[in-house]
Amino acid sequence: MTSAETGEARGAARRRSGGRSGHERNKGLQQRPWAQPRLRYPPTPVVSEDELELIHQASLRVLAEIGMDFLDAEAREILKTAGATVEQGSERVRFEPDMVVETIRTAPATFTLHARNPEHHLRIGGDWMAFASVGSAPNVADLDGGRRVGNRADFQNLVRLCQMLNAVHLFAGYPVEPIDLHASIRHLDAIHDLLTLADKPIHAYSLGRQRNLDALEMVRIARGVDEATLHREPSIFTVINSSSPLRLDTPMLHGILEYSARNQVVVMTPFMLAGAMAPVTLAGALAEQNAEALAGMVLTQVVRPGAPVVYGGFTSNVDMRSGAPAFGTPEYMRTAMIGGQLARRYNVPYRSSNVSAANAVDAQAAYESVFSLWGAIMGGVNLLMHGAGWMEGGLQASYEKVILDAELLGMVAAFLDPVVVDDDSLALDAMLEVGPGGHFFGAAHTQARFRTAFHEPIISDWRNYETWEEAGSPEAAGKANGIWKKLLATYEAPPMESDIREELTAFVERRKSEGGVATDF
Amino acid sequence: MTSAETGEARGAARRRSGGRSGHERNKGLQQRPWAQPRLRYPPTPVVSEDELELIHQASLRVLAEIGMDFLDAEAREILKTAGATVEQGSERVRFEPDMVVETIRTAPATFTLHARNPEHHLRIGGDWMAFASVGSAPNVADLDGGRRVGNRADFQNLVRLCQMLNAVHLFAGYPVEPIDLHASIRHLDAIHDLLTLADKPIHAYSLGRQRNLDALEMVRIARGVDEATLHREPSIFTVINSSSPLRLDTPMLHGILEYSARNQVVVMTPFMLAGAMAPVTLAGALAEQNAEALAGMVLTQVVRPGAPVVYGGFTSNVDMRSGAPAFGTPEYMRTAMIGGQLARRYNVPYRSSNVSAANAVDAQAAYESVFSLWGAIMGGVNLLMHGAGWMEGGLQASYEKVILDAELLGMVAAFLDPVVVDDDSLALDAMLEVGPGGHFFGAAHTQARFRTAFHEPIISDWRNYETWEEAGSPEAAGKANGIWKKLLATYEAPPMESDIREELTAFVERRKSEGGVATDF
Repeated sequence: MTSAETGEARGAARRRSGGRSGHERNKGLQQRPWAQPRLRYPPTPVVSEDELELIHQASLRVLAEIGMDFLDAEAREILKTAGATVEQGSERVRFEPDMVVETIRTAPATFTLHARNPEHHLRIGGDWMAFASVGSAPNVADLDGGRRVGNRADFQNLVRLCQMLNAVHLFAGYPVEPIDLHASIRHLDAIHDLLTLADKPIHAYSLGRQRNLDALEMVRIARGVDEATLHREPSIFTVINSSSPLRLDTPMLHGILEYSARNQVVVMTPFMLAGAMAPVTLAGALAEQNAEALAGMVLTQVVRPGAPVVYGGFTSNVDMRSGAPAFGTPEYMRTAMIGGQLARRYNVPYRSSNVSAANAVDAQAAYESVFSLWGAIMGGVNLLMHGAGWMEGGLQASYEKVILDAELLGMVAAFLDPVVVDDDSLALDAMLEVGPGGHFFGAAHTQARFRTAFHEPIISDWRNYETWEEAGSPEAAGKANGIWKKLLATYEAPPMESDIREELTAFVERRKSEGGVATDF
Repeated sequence: MTSAETGEARGAARRRSGGRSGHERNKGLQQRPWAQPRLRYPPTPVVSEDELELIHQASLRVLAEIGMDFLDAEAREILKTAGATVEQGSERVRFEPDMVVETIRTAPATFTLHARNPEHHLRIGGDWMAFASVGSAPNVADLDGGRRVGNRADFQNLVRLCQMLNAVHLFAGYPVEPIDLHASIRHLDAIHDLLTLADKPIHAYSLGRQRNLDALEMVRIARGVDEATLHREPSIFTVINSSSPLRLDTPMLHGILEYSARNQVVVMTPFMLAGAMAPVTLAGALAEQNAEALAGMVLTQVVRPGAPVVYGGFTSNVDMRSGAPAFGTPEYMRTAMIGGQLARRYNVPYRSSNVSAANAVDAQAAYESVFSLWGAIMGGVNLLMHGAGWMEGGLQASYEKVILDAELLGMVAAFLDPVVVDDDSLALDAMLEVGPGGHFFGAAHTQARFRTAFHEPIISDWRNYETWEEAGSPEAAGKANGIWKKLLATYEAPPMESDIREELTAFVERRKSEGGVATDF
């Protein structure tokens, strides 16, 4: 651009400071409005239909011939009544292929996950996407304070940040585990924070029946609905991890029993590291993942036909020299995509994750995350867990990574915007007006559109080197640091009716006075 | 993994130090063997077939109604003879749609680009991919020396690095412009370096007829072939940029005239920044890109039916507040993918690029590059320019970025490896052996495969936080720094027969004594 044109651009920038339709200047950050992205492109098939069938058939053989250990007697009894075979004097349950295939037919292809703010309800399934915060990290870090063990203050800050970021649609759990809250009452305070500092859908950890029910009751209160409505409208989700290979433990099974019975969302997620708790081959790891996912799905439908369930995949590899888990790898990408093919085969929503094994918010953190997003998005993910903030293979939630990921998720959403092809966008008149050797900046067509034409980044610095160097050679992580501080400084809690707030507080206090949930772990 | 298993893994690692079939330990770096990746997945269609047709038709209208300025009289004459309309007393050339569509039919769908080392010949087109080095940067940088103007010593180092990296298949030009070589003889010394320090295919800048012919002659000598063979076997390529909008200048036109006539490769690449030299809408920018690409392709086929030509796309957006070019954006990704759809419509190979606007090798450099790779790869790229080393929107070649990009390209190649699905990989026997609650590390199935099961990273650090912190909290850019130093320390020039070396040297010396090419720019 000529200097005159650059000056014109800057003048235009000053004139438009009063609001841009494409990006919001509220919440102290230029960001896209809240919306659920939709996958407008065909998902990428990594294996053929025939190969997919082989994986499916192998899973059915696993369930029929090897079976799975269900560590809870009640769950075994329910499955036995539904036609599974429980080995006498054992926890082993086997399933006939037909029973598996027929039982999962009732799982819904799409459903709505309700938030306490109706504007934040989420469509789960089909081509809809929902991006979650990081969840379950034991440690938290930021550039100034360094790394420390999870605590309530940081937990609350991460909840505030994720509430403010439109790219984050729901909470994957506790962004960081607030271990300064006693385990017996932690869920009460943490969920109270999630429901008051934010108004997006939340997750409950399946750590026993009572915690699941407490969480559900708190969501009921926060939504201001009665129990009948709650059981009609999925309002909370829980991630159920199998103990791979081929085991489901009691707390996880109770999670299915309690939540599926009440029409709440189960995200059935085997966690596989090829070569460790799964075969070292990707097809084998996927066959095992699929078997475990199918078994969990069967239980949800046996408990309640039509209960919402999400097919979860979380299959990666290890570094074979050290045994360390690796994330965002070429293996991870392909299993993420094949997992999506499997979920679509069963016509249920698909869960994948944004992951990285990096210890610092550097190039590795970025490329591992973008590669895992590539795998998830082109795998047709519906529920993207750990979308914002995950570091260290899940052992750390990072403030700066929350911001970096918000950048990545915003770019993904913009990538999914359709490219409009019509007479107006083909711009023949503009090309005629400008002509060979001309410039489009001054053209009417450009002037009418440029303010909202392109995605605006949160972090990306596009200044020339000299200008950037004069500004202190800022790098991405440092910029993210400044952004989260600014965001938190402008944070405002979402509104909550005072009677609801009182009822929620009263519930928490009552349950705490009762000792919460007796904790032996 | 248990500590016993970790110990076993480490023992296994010691035992296997004597060679891994999947990765080479030569060249001082663990990397995949040299190979051209193939796109095994369907490219992602961003627009529908109907929308693609609208873009195509709009381009034909541009060429028929507006036309393009061809600044060279010889080129205009050639086109006129072939049926284009040259406006009297003007440089304007217009094309009838039928003439365009018919003329480009002779462009080959695939061809081989020959290297002086036959093991480095490249298939261009179809589902084959070739990754190039960075090209044309005016500055160079590394973490120790900082940023400096391009010079021959750094140029040579970057050539050496790209020669050693199996992920880099060819040279996109001069990795950095060696401006300490006088412009009149620069091409002679630079190409001499490219042909002696490396043995991968090279590029010639179209800066006038004589430079093109000098480059071609040097390649002929280096390949040890006669002129008839050279004209049968494409052995060099040139990137032809239009002066957008809708102009082709004389040096670029001469590039087409000289190279297409001799069956050498033309990569016809309009460079569009939406809102600047192209319409601000993506469809409009693509219609203009397509018109310019078609016009260049027409000229190549008129000069010589069957001359190898690549459809190049390089369309991005600007930051509308500053006018700064932006790279690796959601706009860039979608135009990269649609460009691929267009190239496939014309049944010619497709060129895209790995790009970033970052000034430091930080998270931004990584995510912008991976997003642009996502766009290129899923857009069906055949020739990926600037695959390794590009920073600052093309104004800088970075040593560390070369290594980071080698990591990214290696991961992409591994991502494109097929997932084998057969009885062996489905591992039912292993699952039966291990059983519920077991562990796969000790299984025979795992032991037989783990050494080569997974992609090994170059940079990614998967150590736990404590170990990583004790090691000084190394970050990706610093690790890349150590890696390029180690690589250069082990560099060995590829062999070259002494008579060829003498002939090449003699040619360069003769041409220099003749004054090279008189330079008025």
